[in-house]
Amino acid sequence: MQTNDQLLAIFENYLAQVELPEEPELLYAPIGYSLAGGGKRLRPLLLLLSCEAFSGNYKTALNAAAAVEVFHNFTLLHDDIMDHSPMRRGKPSVAARWGENVAILSGDAMLITAYRLLCSTPTPMLGRVMEVFNTMAVGVCEGQQYDMDFETRQKVSVVEYMRMIELKTSVLLAGSAMIGALIGGASEADARKLYKYAIELGLAFQLQDDLLDSYGDERLGKPIGGDILEGKKTYLMITAMSHASEEEREILRSTHLDPSLTREEKIARVRALYDKLEIPHLTEQQISLRFERALAQLTTLDLPAERTAGLREFAESLMGRKK
Amino acid sequence: MQTNDQLLAIFENYLAQVELPEEPELLYAPIGYSLAGGGKRLRPLLLLLSCEAFSGNYKTALNAAAAVEVFHNFTLLHDDIMDHSPMRRGKPSVAARWGENVAILSGDAMLITAYRLLCSTPTPMLGRVMEVFNTMAVGVCEGQQYDMDFETRQKVSVVEYMRMIELKTSVLLAGSAMIGALIGGASEADARKLYKYAIELGLAFQLQDDLLDSYGDERLGKPIGGDILEGKKTYLMITAMSHASEEEREILRSTHLDPSLTREEKIARVRALYDKLEIPHLTEQQISLRFERALAQLTTLDLPAERTAGLREFAESLMGRKK
Repeated sequence: MQTNDQLLAIFENYLAQVELPEEPELLYAPIGYSLAGGGKRLRPLLLLLSCEAFSGNYKTALNAAAAVEVFHNFTLLHDDIMDHSPMRRGKPSVAARWGENVAILSGDAMLITAYRLLCSTPTPMLGRVMEVFNTMAVGVCEGQQYDMDFETRQKVSVVEYMRMIELKTSVLLAGSAMIGALIGGASEADARKLYKYAIELGLAFQLQDDLLDSYGDERLGKPIGGDILEGKKTYLMITAMSHASEEEREILRSTHLDPSLTREEKIARVRALYDKLEIPHLTEQQISLRFERALAQLTTLDLPAERTAGLREFAESLMGRKK
Repeated sequence: MQTNDQLLAIFENYLAQVELPEEPELLYAPIGYSLAGGGKRLRPLLLLLSCEAFSGNYKTALNAAAAVEVFHNFTLLHDDIMDHSPMRRGKPSVAARWGENVAILSGDAMLITAYRLLCSTPTPMLGRVMEVFNTMAVGVCEGQQYDMDFETRQKVSVVEYMRMIELKTSVLLAGSAMIGALIGGASEADARKLYKYAIELGLAFQLQDDLLDSYGDERLGKPIGGDILEGKKTYLMITAMSHASEEEREILRSTHLDPSLTREEKIARVRALYDKLEIPHLTEQQISLRFERALAQLTTLDLPAERTAGLREFAESLMGRKK
């Protein structure tokens, strides 16, 4: 069994060896640029760990791990066009560097490249793995569409929000875990347990992301309040709206648009209301609930503890709870 | 054996039954809109005919036929964003009707839908069919990129142009034919013959399209000269450039930009030069050569003539040479 760091290094090497044609340059250079741009490689690592848990061998899953990483980077590439994002991981986005048309088309070629990599999955599993991949891929598109829909909607319920982040964030993690498990020879029932583990973990991660954006993390020292200043419908905002009086709701809706307030005043005003409504506490409860549910899935597997140690560590590391 | 018209009707029914989710509406409505928008269904028909030629039964190939049609419509959807095309088949393009972001994302979901449909291919063939589909799909992207590259390039050779239209037009026909043949149980060698048949046929079709744009077709009565007015690098223009004197080349390069000429004068001037250089004749020769090569592939198959009659008719019908 490899440590998580060893698996990450092995994957990085594998990905660097995936060959892309040289011509036409404007089709393939952006793909290489995206894949070399770093990123935490969470999804391929999760896929490899899931495979190892059942088979003790990650090797037959390397191509599928590359497929989910290429797919993930494809979604970022197209998202950056839709969001007009100039930067990605500290470098110009593909859309900003090469223009929208190149970003559309090289993104398309990247999605096809993901399928190409997936195709090397051993034949007996290929059909089922493809099904899981397709369901995952279309789910991510649905999540992105709901996210865009929510921007222009007055009201979004907590249930709708949870469904959106499940599609946008969790489904890709869960699909990766399930594909890894299936390639590792897991039964359909066991693979589904890893799927649920990753769904819950993804939700915990996304909610923590929402919480940190407004309350920060002393370990990171990142500027906080971006979501508040944008008036973004996060878990905090949506939960606050559902707990607030009509008067408070109006404050939540309008503060970010108020030209008489400084950035700091806007952030302070919304946070004061969040605090009064106990939103940080409610969010932390939800995060812990989801995190515990994720880990609980692992204990239901009929596997020796050392086989799932990597998955446990992955969860703790993702949530910054690494011991 | 079905007639080609019967197969088309069967396919149209099958495609209409493919179910798409209802939500999120902005993701799926454009897919339904694209697929219901008509089109000649050339690629699925070719795929079904290729399957029938070997197996006498098109039924196991219906899902793959739908996959190539969905893929084709996906490429049109994204091409219309890149080309800023307001119309497609007499209706607003998806990009014009719903905006670019919706067109990008629903196009992505459409590509995934194509793979979903392809997945129902019988397991023993799935891996190979996927490989052919992936190679085809990435080839089409390469063709589109070369096409865009050529717009901004001073000089394009005939060889480069032929390679571009092979990728952009022929490869999708050829991949469709090969997938149909493989599902029909053809050997790799026989499937490759159908691949070549469709490559040559696609080239003949594209060159004829170039010729008709400048010389028209008395049967169609379509307005002619669009390519000349745009200064587009077609087979006619590129061949003319390679046969022309330096003085004539300057006329070919500059006529469409000359503000002192009417549309009719521009068309007449370029056509006069084409005629002098015998470009229509050279193009017709090339079309006939490719068409004959396509049909010749069919005769090398060890199949009774009635099994390939549909493919022969398909070729003649595509070229408007139907008896």
